[in-house]
Amino acid sequence: MSEQLRFEDFTVGRKFSFGDHVVSEKEIIDFALEYDPQPMHVDPIEAKHEIMGGLIASGWHLCALAMRLIKDGLFDDETSLGSPGVDEVQWRRPVRPNDRLTMKAEVLEARSSKSKPDRGIVRFRFDLFRTDEAGKRQLAITYTSPVMIRKREA
Amino acid sequence: MSEQLRFEDFTVGRKFSFGDHVVSEKEIIDFALEYDPQPMHVDPIEAKHEIMGGLIASGWHLCALAMRLIKDGLFDDETSLGSPGVDEVQWRRPVRPNDRLTMKAEVLEARSSKSKPDRGIVRFRFDLFRTDEAGKRQLAITYTSPVMIRKREA
Repeated sequence: MSEQLRFEDFTVGRKFSFGDHVVSEKEIIDFALEYDPQPMHVDPIEAKHEIMGGLIASGWHLCALAMRLIKDGLFDDETSLGSPGVDEVQWRRPVRPNDRLTMKAEVLEARSSKSKPDRGIVRFRFDLFRTDEAGKRQLAITYTSPVMIRKREA
Repeated sequence: MSEQLRFEDFTVGRKFSFGDHVVSEKEIIDFALEYDPQPMHVDPIEAKHEIMGGLIASGWHLCALAMRLIKDGLFDDETSLGSPGVDEVQWRRPVRPNDRLTMKAEVLEARSSKSKPDRGIVRFRFDLFRTDEAGKRQLAITYTSPVMIRKREA
């Protein structure tokens, strides 16, 4: 993070592009062995015969990878004070080994907290894109989430 | 899994209880270092001074742990054919080291696929509960998700 973003910076309609991570087959399998050991996520041979036609990352792995890109590219250690949840998580396209992942965030709503003067609530749409080895870029996952964001001037 | 559950078994209103996993401090920190390295998730000392009053698991870690309990306790390798997403994810209560995690699933809707005779779409509510070391049990996370479920008789 070069700039420290705070509530005042997240104005409605503002968009941010960030993140760049190439996901490896090992990463996909390691996550799935721990958290989502279904054949399509852990077994490259078996996965070829499944509907997806090859190994694909767990949808929850994609959410976790998006969070890491947000933490590294949008939020510093002080920006977020947590979130009550997420909505409308859509797993649009499978992510495969060697796909390059990038993020977009858009501010949908922003309001000051009534009870806590040090923060506001910002509702984001977060989009994770995949770019395959041939250079084709597609929306992989999208979701919305309200996040409690620290104010610069509390 | 003792029984192999298929679409025919997921009738509306049916409830399932399963899963039993005690989450360790190391697990919480290891996940967060990789995917959600915010102070409240990675630093037990720093976390004491944060609003949550101690180390808590990343919300995405809880979703991943719920998925593992579902895979081990409800779905075998053939049950699920994937899911288009999740809705209304609510992170209700923080999960702390040594909490015991258990799951409930309820069938909200079930319908045959119109285009694919080998499957139906079952919409579940999934609830993850925490039981702390004093024995207090609370809803930690809840969400709904449509899942494509294989039929027994295709």
